[in-house]
Amino acid sequence: MKKSLNYFFSRVKELKEKGKKILVFTLTSPEFEPPPLKEKILNLYPLSFSYSPAGGDFTLRETLAKFYSAKWQKPLKKENTFVGAGEKEILFILLNLILEKGGEVVIVSPNWPSYPRMVEMAKGRVKFFKTSEKEGFYLKTQELKKVISAKTKAVIINSPANPTGKALREKDVKFLANLALKKNFLLIADEVYEIYDYENHYCSFLKYFNKNIFCVFSASKIFSLCGWRTGWGFGREKLIKQMINYQFNLSTSPHTLSQLVIREIFKDPEGISQYFLKTEEEARKRRDLAINFLREKKVAFILPEGGIAIFIKIPSSFKNAFSFCETLLNKELVSVAPGEIFGEKKYFRMNLAVSLANLNEGLKRIAKYY
Amino acid sequence: MKKSLNYFFSRVKELKEKGKKILVFTLTSPEFEPPPLKEKILNLYPLSFSYSPAGGDFTLRETLAKFYSAKWQKPLKKENTFVGAGEKEILFILLNLILEKGGEVVIVSPNWPSYPRMVEMAKGRVKFFKTSEKEGFYLKTQELKKVISAKTKAVIINSPANPTGKALREKDVKFLANLALKKNFLLIADEVYEIYDYENHYCSFLKYFNKNIFCVFSASKIFSLCGWRTGWGFGREKLIKQMINYQFNLSTSPHTLSQLVIREIFKDPEGISQYFLKTEEEARKRRDLAINFLREKKVAFILPEGGIAIFIKIPSSFKNAFSFCETLLNKELVSVAPGEIFGEKKYFRMNLAVSLANLNEGLKRIAKYY
Repeated sequence: MKKSLNYFFSRVKELKEKGKKILVFTLTSPEFEPPPLKEKILNLYPLSFSYSPAGGDFTLRETLAKFYSAKWQKPLKKENTFVGAGEKEILFILLNLILEKGGEVVIVSPNWPSYPRMVEMAKGRVKFFKTSEKEGFYLKTQELKKVISAKTKAVIINSPANPTGKALREKDVKFLANLALKKNFLLIADEVYEIYDYENHYCSFLKYFNKNIFCVFSASKIFSLCGWRTGWGFGREKLIKQMINYQFNLSTSPHTLSQLVIREIFKDPEGISQYFLKTEEEARKRRDLAINFLREKKVAFILPEGGIAIFIKIPSSFKNAFSFCETLLNKELVSVAPGEIFGEKKYFRMNLAVSLANLNEGLKRIAKYY
Repeated sequence: MKKSLNYFFSRVKELKEKGKKILVFTLTSPEFEPPPLKEKILNLYPLSFSYSPAGGDFTLRETLAKFYSAKWQKPLKKENTFVGAGEKEILFILLNLILEKGGEVVIVSPNWPSYPRMVEMAKGRVKFFKTSEKEGFYLKTQELKKVISAKTKAVIINSPANPTGKALREKDVKFLANLALKKNFLLIADEVYEIYDYENHYCSFLKYFNKNIFCVFSASKIFSLCGWRTGWGFGREKLIKQMINYQFNLSTSPHTLSQLVIREIFKDPEGISQYFLKTEEEARKRRDLAINFLREKKVAFILPEGGIAIFIKIPSSFKNAFSFCETLLNKELVSVAPGEIFGEKKYFRMNLAVSLANLNEGLKRIAKYY
């Protein structure tokens, strides 16, 4: 049986039903405090009964374009901006549109498992580009260039990356942005972990925005509002128009109340900057706790430059991550994500965006095996 | 230029920007009072930050299964129940799954324009089954039977129907439910207008539920919560499981807060029944106002047995509904939906679920042309 994350979800459920208390670090859903919401919700919910326009509320699109234009010094307009029911709906629509006539998508690996699944659902072909453990899974962009062919419709870059925590340096961002233009593929930059940037490496592809770039962001990751199903992306006008048409027939429009509340949050750039700093600080505390602990215990891991997870090497006594994660869950009641689902069987991923107490206790139980 | 509803949307926007006050009856988004929400939202939003499970919150699914089981005396379980981001996401997922290897979908026409678009997006073939004006667009099920072939993967039935307002009689529901089983196609019953049933004709396919039936419902239509993007459907367990997998990769899960609030509403069957009766009464007032007015003015229309719209014949002096609707908009500042988009160029659709004052005024302006 090819075990998937679902195996772990079901097993956690089973154990919980037996009364066991499980420490869960399986998904990367941040548990930080969202921005203040109560007043905004109360003011806005009477406006939430109607559909929004497909592609998103006009003022939200304008506000997002303005915010990200200021942040990356690149002029973006409402017409470049698309709002969807989370990052996933946006990627789903995008991939279905660009793979309509087939083609290949290059995915840098280790990778978020939804990328290959979505490409397959859109009837495209997946080509993995493996980064090496020796390089700390950092993407060598010159090597990547060699696998681009006429069949390549898109390349998905995730920075800061899940599960490895790597953040692409500006020179590599610039190189790839130009390459996308020259070789005419769509560079899909998944930057949902934008605010978690511990080493100051992260540079958005928006800084080198051109007609072959599409960048996607998410309220789930930056506001800890996973259940609010709102994400946004920036791309060339013509593509955004097609996406709006597609979304109209898929789901009419994103959730109105979520959009209105997020619009209010973004209307206060000062407040939002402070909120982001505070949230990153909370995340950094957890990252530092984890890396100091693991160093002390001489457990190998990949240094998270960004993001909210850590990629930890399994003990050498285990033949693969699945078997180690199974043991952790059954013996230690700790649930983490085995590296196999990301394409790397010697590592597992641990979510760091949880309470400090749970993180401490989880790390202690894991360290017993090293 | 093949004019679409978009032409009317843009034109309305244009006129509004010029300061014109437009009476809009274009979409069927009800403007009735939703159930009391404030307290529920305040209690529940702190639980809204996490993802729900794909396919919907377990307790909501259980609650819906229980409610509809009681209503139609047919046992439905959580495992038969699927929650999506509105009716559209549900139909989109369903059609993509059943048309994976191609095939044909029979659509009873005049029809909601999203059906054929969605079938095309799922790479299926559309076969329209035209009902005739002579029958008041009532579906003759014996005739429909003749167009079913081995290629037919699904038949979409909309009852009460948009735009015609027809509600399928119980004997026809029973006949089609058996036919679906015998000929092995999926009967997709779109029953989003379930509570608007003026002649007591409506019978849900749930009453004759079998493994070849899928019924879909929507918070947009019954609670006037269009912007809340929540719908639900019932089908066979195996299909629901596939839909859950598909949704997980498309949008992770539906909106958490909407689901939690709707769950609370459905937990009070007594309150909900009263709310439905009150809402139907409001809708009936508008229907009766419209039909009495049109009869008096000798304007031909199709009697709405259910739903929230009326299908009105254009004046004989106009060659098609597009040109009449264009005239109405430009000269009378009244926006309605031309029958062409539903497959019937001698009629237009008018939303009735608006304020009585607007409805009155709109009808008066329309009547000038007869």
